[in-house]
Parts: sequence; structure tokens; C-alpha cells
Amino acid sequence: MLTRIDHIGIACHDLDTTVAFYRSTYGFEVCHTEVNEEQGVREAMLRVNGTSDGGATYLQLLEPVREDSAVGKWLARNGEGVHHIAFGTPDVDGDAAAIGEKGVRVLYEEPRTGTMGSRITFLHPKDCHGVLTELVTSSPEH
Amino acid sequence: MLTRIDHIGIACHDLDTTVAFYRSTYGFEVCHTEVNEEQGVREAMLRVNGTSDGGATYLQLLEPVREDSAVGKWLARNGEGVHHIAFGTPDVDGDAAAIGEKGVRVLYEEPRTGTMGSRITFLHPKDCHGVLTELVTSSPEH
Repeated sequence: MLTRIDHIGIACHDLDTTVAFYRSTYGFEVCHTEVNEEQGVREAMLRVNGTSDGGATYLQLLEPVREDSAVGKWLARNGEGVHHIAFGTPDVDGDAAAIGEKGVRVLYEEPRTGTMGSRITFLHPKDCHGVLTELVTSSPEH
Repeated sequence: MLTRIDHIGIACHDLDTTVAFYRSTYGFEVCHTEVNEEQGVREAMLRVNGTSDGGATYLQLLEPVREDSAVGKWLARNGEGVHHIAFGTPDVDGDAAAIGEKGVRVLYEEPRTGTMGSRITFLHPKDCHGVLTELVTSSPEH
């Protein structure tokens, strides 16, 4: 069961410049950064608010570390902007299986590692009215 | 001060079909629908979670009612997908003025009427790293 908007993923050319924009314009601060080699991105998480399921909603700023990464190719095609949205769930495996049974293509056979040790998968945007949609279960540590 | 992600605005060709997708795939229910003639859209709000500022985060599904509306033109150019993101604030006037002073173009001279009687304005996506960004103050009734 999807219990929150976990984050909005925003692709950018330069992470530092974009972080600086979000800080100076809105006052949002970075609470976490990491490089996810498998996803091919350098990323910064900006916490916007807490959520009623005990989690939080973040902006996730994404800079590709390789041009041939999914985000790198998307950025070359579309320019900067909203890349995906992510729903939080306590059970990414169960939800991905249930959604897959409804005919929506799930992009990973098994969930992979996302930000802050989370487990994530993606749903095909063509099956979701044009929205690349992530499902995420946070690490118990976060 | 921006205190939450208020909603993610998603443009679609057919509101009923898209509402049915979000209900059957994820279990999200429509809590409000309206036609906003000024914005040229028919819209449905799906509440996803409550937020730590006492508000909530929604998905806002948007179908243009006129091809020459902003959303209609965007949809013709981009196809279905995430159209904008919206931050909630108790003071859209003050925040829009402060952000405008930092050199970000604010699209309305005065906030206009948004969903459920809210007051809204938009920031130019070219000044926001490609993200059309809305600021919204909810109506006291909601």
C-alpha cells in the first residue's frame, strides 16, 4: 500500500548549482548526498516535510555521472526538469508484484538499492500515463 | 516559507481514464473535482498523505478543456506526464514577492484562484532549472 509521496526526482546538469538554487530561493537544505553507481547518478536529498505515515517527502536532485546512464540520456533528450515521482510503501516487493499483475510493466525483476539504503523499483512510464513512477521502501535506519 | 509539497500536477488527455488508472493501480481515490475556467482545465485531486504542517499532499490530474490553454499547449508539445510541482505556504503573497526579488520570474502579478479555493502563483520554469513551480496557499476551508 502506497502511503506517501516519498520524493520528486529532478534531473539537472550540475548538482551544486541546482542545490544552491533550491537553498537560496526556497531555503531547502540538503540532508543527504550520495553517488549511486548502479543508477549512474550523483544526488542530493532535500527534505521538504514530514508525512502522516511517519516518513517524509523530499526533493531528489539528480546529476548523471555518465552520459549513457538513464538520467543522462533523459536529460539529453528533455533538458532539466521533473524526471520521476516516487511513492513510499512499507512493502515494495508486494506492491510491485500486485501492480505487475495488473499489467503495468515493472522495470526490475527484484528491487534495487536506492537513496539512503532504500529498496526501489520503477514502473514503465508508458503504462503510467507518461509518468516514470518509482516505488520505494525506506531503510529501517531512515 | 514553503512548508510542504502540496501537489504534483500531472497533465493527461482524458481525466476519467487517468483517474481510473490511479484508482485501480494504486488505490488512490478522488477527493475533489472541479473545472477551472481561468486555467482552462478540468481536474481531479487525489489525496496521498497528510503533511507535518497540517496540510496534505495530492496528485492533481489535469485535462485541458481548451487546446489553447497552457496545459493544452504543453500536452500537445510533451505528451502526458508531470506538468508542475507545487509547494504549500501560509503566505503565497509574501513568498512570491521574496522569490521575485531574487530574480525568479513570478508569472502572475497577483495570485489567482487555484484548486479548492486556494490562492496560487507560478514561477517561470526557465528560472527554476526546468521545473514549472507553483506556490499555493490553501483556502481556510480546506
